[in-house]
Amino acid sequence: MNLRRLGEFGLIELIRRVSRSGKGVRIGIGDDCAWINHPAGSSLVTADLLIERIHFDLKWTSFESLGHKSLAVNLSDIAAMGGLPAYALLSLGIPERFDSRQILDFYRGFNRLARRHGVVVIGGDTNVAHSFIVSICLIAHPPARPVRRSGARVGDDIYVTGNLGDSALGLALLRRRLPARNSAAGARLLLRHHRPTPRLGAGLVLARRKLASAMIDISDGLLQDLGHICRASGTGAIIWQQSLPLSRDYLSLAGSLAASLALHGGEDYELLFCARPNKRKQIEQLSASAGVQITRIGSCVPAAQGVTVLDPAGKPVPVPHRGHDHFQVDAQGA
Amino acid sequence: MNLRRLGEFGLIELIRRVSRSGKGVRIGIGDDCAWINHPAGSSLVTADLLIERIHFDLKWTSFESLGHKSLAVNLSDIAAMGGLPAYALLSLGIPERFDSRQILDFYRGFNRLARRHGVVVIGGDTNVAHSFIVSICLIAHPPARPVRRSGARVGDDIYVTGNLGDSALGLALLRRRLPARNSAAGARLLLRHHRPTPRLGAGLVLARRKLASAMIDISDGLLQDLGHICRASGTGAIIWQQSLPLSRDYLSLAGSLAASLALHGGEDYELLFCARPNKRKQIEQLSASAGVQITRIGSCVPAAQGVTVLDPAGKPVPVPHRGHDHFQVDAQGA
Repeated sequence: MNLRRLGEFGLIELIRRVSRSGKGVRIGIGDDCAWINHPAGSSLVTADLLIERIHFDLKWTSFESLGHKSLAVNLSDIAAMGGLPAYALLSLGIPERFDSRQILDFYRGFNRLARRHGVVVIGGDTNVAHSFIVSICLIAHPPARPVRRSGARVGDDIYVTGNLGDSALGLALLRRRLPARNSAAGARLLLRHHRPTPRLGAGLVLARRKLASAMIDISDGLLQDLGHICRASGTGAIIWQQSLPLSRDYLSLAGSLAASLALHGGEDYELLFCARPNKRKQIEQLSASAGVQITRIGSCVPAAQGVTVLDPAGKPVPVPHRGHDHFQVDAQGA
Repeated sequence: MNLRRLGEFGLIELIRRVSRSGKGVRIGIGDDCAWINHPAGSSLVTADLLIERIHFDLKWTSFESLGHKSLAVNLSDIAAMGGLPAYALLSLGIPERFDSRQILDFYRGFNRLARRHGVVVIGGDTNVAHSFIVSICLIAHPPARPVRRSGARVGDDIYVTGNLGDSALGLALLRRRLPARNSAAGARLLLRHHRPTPRLGAGLVLARRKLASAMIDISDGLLQDLGHICRASGTGAIIWQQSLPLSRDYLSLAGSLAASLALHGGEDYELLFCARPNKRKQIEQLSASAGVQITRIGSCVPAAQGVTVLDPAGKPVPVPHRGHDHFQVDAQGA
């Protein structure tokens, strides 16, 4: 049904019906505020704002994928501190021309991922807008000691989960309308772009077993997010280029982009973390038990040495572009 | 400084510096998630999304007022359940052409109101956008029993705080570019529109002393928001038109709009609540002690009688337009 005919309150009722309630929710959708129980004495909270033609393009994504991804990027923030996600507030700005089926498709993708991770939507806001806007606030139960960005020390190892660059390469295939996007490898890369996997299990174990000294999720590219850890921790870093985990699909299609996207490509939503060298064995075991690839890619060095990428011969690789900055995109000509 | 030159992280750093931290905040702005202590075992949480040219027009509002109002509308939701606000997540979508001074002005208005009510900003998100977008998530400590919309019973009295229609009349003066907006009365009405006062003190006492059986804040007009209470409670309502609290400024400038704006005008952010008749004395005392005008304007009746407005002669007043609905604004020609 067209939203203009359905009306705001009809839409809210529709959303209420497709959203599940859950244990611990004393008042959910349908009142001025949500009211939630807290089994622990504290919460982790994160918020993200996604805007059409800034963060996503409806030419290239289905509403269902967008629903999945909107939640995944928030879950990834929770994962990066080792939290257990619990409650979500979802606010939407919706162009009048939209059909309610599109919004329901969005919720389908959102709710499927929410169920998988035990997330309950407890409220939000719904508005008409000039372009599609998704604003999410997520509340999670923290581990005893959430992993911050600032705990890395000189000598710590540097690790990443999963592979790097897949998402950025998937987007590049779309944007440049390359035929490769229709190949099996290309389709898998697109899936990594549209449906990233938040690494909640790995984040949780890394925090609970106190394995990670510092952690962040890679949303703006490896080097930029590593830069955040280094600044917060007061260290530098060396990254070994030949150690970067690259998928077979990436290697088969990246071509001249191979060197660049693994270092700078955004939206991987993998975890980047540091750990003392005496934790190597436990981290290897975690990789096996959690079913997620974890790769050691470098080492923390004194801050004065900055962040350096070394090629197989041990020579520094020039790194001109430092990842994504919303307000500086044009200035960089990216 | 121009945002393009300042950059995203420069802006975040700027925002971090103008935002205060506070007791109970274990990790605030500058990490993946915020980490907050919970003195009580539960929280109230609310979220609002405000979009340029939908909810506000920069032709008519200063950034400082907009900062105040963005927080006020969320605080009003907390007030409507009797909560004590504690933490805010503030996400902004900002057009590239903006100057950072404008954003700081926004924060100035936001932070002044936040300080007044003990609210600490614990995170959020900052993005470039095609129009200005403000998304706020607010977390509050609940009273023992938050006041819902659904507790009204037949025979309950109906009350409102403050005056009705001032905000809508202020907006009408602006939109129609009436010269009256430059009079002292007009300026006061504009202030009610730009800087609404969230009724936190009254809401808190009404909840803690269990005086209110049902409560909501008036954001979409008295009759529409009363309709929400009636639907949730399974009652109807009678409103006495001559009892509606109207300010002297409103009466002097409303002219032909007088009858309509008090019933349908949005954005008053006053509290609308119901109470058993045996609470009248306590509510009168609250009005005096809390320094906020509280007016009895009607009574709850059986649902079958619907919502009726009676004129001084006891005759029903026709009420064609039922308040604000984002998706149906155009269809109504409003």
